[in-house]
Amino acid sequence: MTPPDFAEASAVTPLGEGSYSVEVPAGWDVLGATNGGLLLATTARALMAETGRVPVTLTAHYLAPVAPGRATIATDLVKRGRGFTTATARLSQQERDCMAVLGSFGTIEADPQVLLQDAEPVVLPAAPGQMDRVRADAEVGLPPPLMDRVDIRLHPQDAGFMAGQASGQARMRAWVSPGAAWDPPGVILACDVLPPTIFNANLPVNWTPTLELTVHVRSIPGTEYVRVDSRTRFVSHGRLEVDSLVWDERGDLVAQSRQLMLVPRPAS
Amino acid sequence: MTPPDFAEASAVTPLGEGSYSVEVPAGWDVLGATNGGLLLATTARALMAETGRVPVTLTAHYLAPVAPGRATIATDLVKRGRGFTTATARLSQQERDCMAVLGSFGTIEADPQVLLQDAEPVVLPAAPGQMDRVRADAEVGLPPPLMDRVDIRLHPQDAGFMAGQASGQARMRAWVSPGAAWDPPGVILACDVLPPTIFNANLPVNWTPTLELTVHVRSIPGTEYVRVDSRTRFVSHGRLEVDSLVWDERGDLVAQSRQLMLVPRPAS
Repeated sequence: MTPPDFAEASAVTPLGEGSYSVEVPAGWDVLGATNGGLLLATTARALMAETGRVPVTLTAHYLAPVAPGRATIATDLVKRGRGFTTATARLSQQERDCMAVLGSFGTIEADPQVLLQDAEPVVLPAAPGQMDRVRADAEVGLPPPLMDRVDIRLHPQDAGFMAGQASGQARMRAWVSPGAAWDPPGVILACDVLPPTIFNANLPVNWTPTLELTVHVRSIPGTEYVRVDSRTRFVSHGRLEVDSLVWDERGDLVAQSRQLMLVPRPAS
Repeated sequence: MTPPDFAEASAVTPLGEGSYSVEVPAGWDVLGATNGGLLLATTARALMAETGRVPVTLTAHYLAPVAPGRATIATDLVKRGRGFTTATARLSQQERDCMAVLGSFGTIEADPQVLLQDAEPVVLPAAPGQMDRVRADAEVGLPPPLMDRVDIRLHPQDAGFMAGQASGQARMRAWVSPGAAWDPPGVILACDVLPPTIFNANLPVNWTPTLELTVHVRSIPGTEYVRVDSRTRFVSHGRLEVDSLVWDERGDLVAQSRQLMLVPRPAS
């Protein structure tokens, strides 16, 4: 059976009293753990239904891996104001809290109204259709099944790690499309769907769990693909950050995100 | 009466059942609204007491301004794990929710273990003692009373806005000291205590309310002052971000923070 596309994979069913049921899909995982971007996108969908508004800034703290199967999202309104509604959510699976979320919901301006832009959209060497799509390797498990769900076209300079040739720069640049119409949950997914930046960094770093992810949604993409530029500048004190900038094909800013990950201690 | 120093200003008194009482001090405000960094630092103190751990990543959503006087912080543990405790808090004043917080608490490594550093600490032109301290102007209200509470030595290139000469770059660089021993709440304060970056940007931007602030604490400063480098790259879609990097005098990374602020619509 083919795993569901993004819209279906992130669907929620209301249970009443602010709770939602979720069927976490198979085939959206990395080494067995469901992608954190999908989980936050799904929770955003529950909070959109609950608040009647769209996510402007959302923070998730990841407490435990989520496996395919039934999960529950419990939402709680903190404040409904004139411009924003602030709310929390917890995603749990088999009575275990797996993710805690805090976000503010409002409106997304269609008009970019750019007053200041002090960075250029990341440049990719060709249009999406002219670049190779990353595909999952079912036998090895990496690239993970997730890569067959989302259309990702990595910058060739950043793709060498898959053949054992890391670029030396902790950066991943790509065209990304969720294979569904863009909506705010799709933007959230795009912020957390590329391979880890540090796969390109020549570091003794392996599985890097995410502690926290914050996404600022600035706009909804007006084009089929977005450009995602993810970078890590600081691996220290046992932690590293991943900063992502998302732009649409026209160069409009779509989102900024940052996550905090843990550097595993080297085997001693 | 002299307003309290940082340690006293951010003190909390346990009320039992996870609640804490706070006396929000006068003299820590900007145009009547208490500084958001102080409020998050104070809430961090309550959560440190509750979790027995120190903040690693903290997110605050600001719902309403906080005035000097009594406030209450209600905390709630989400999960206590082996390495991290995740918890939420709400700060309320006169039955009104003013701030919602989500954070994870753990330990801060004393050894920096720098595996990757892809940016240099911001350079200030002289040692803190050789640079002018920003002082409040009680008559005009700006610089605000807050400037007399925290020791801030702005880079001369970024200080011209006070004399009506904005640099044109949405950036503020400074030495900062809380005038008290450094602790994690002091680091949080340092992330949100400089004048708004956009005061230097030649933009028709006035009072800019903060919607959300996220702080990643990497280390506790080993020196009296820290270097703070705050920048804004994108003012668009009615919002702007402020990214801050905090380093100690030796050049060790102390914290990364990002906040999302609202661009007020121009008067029509």
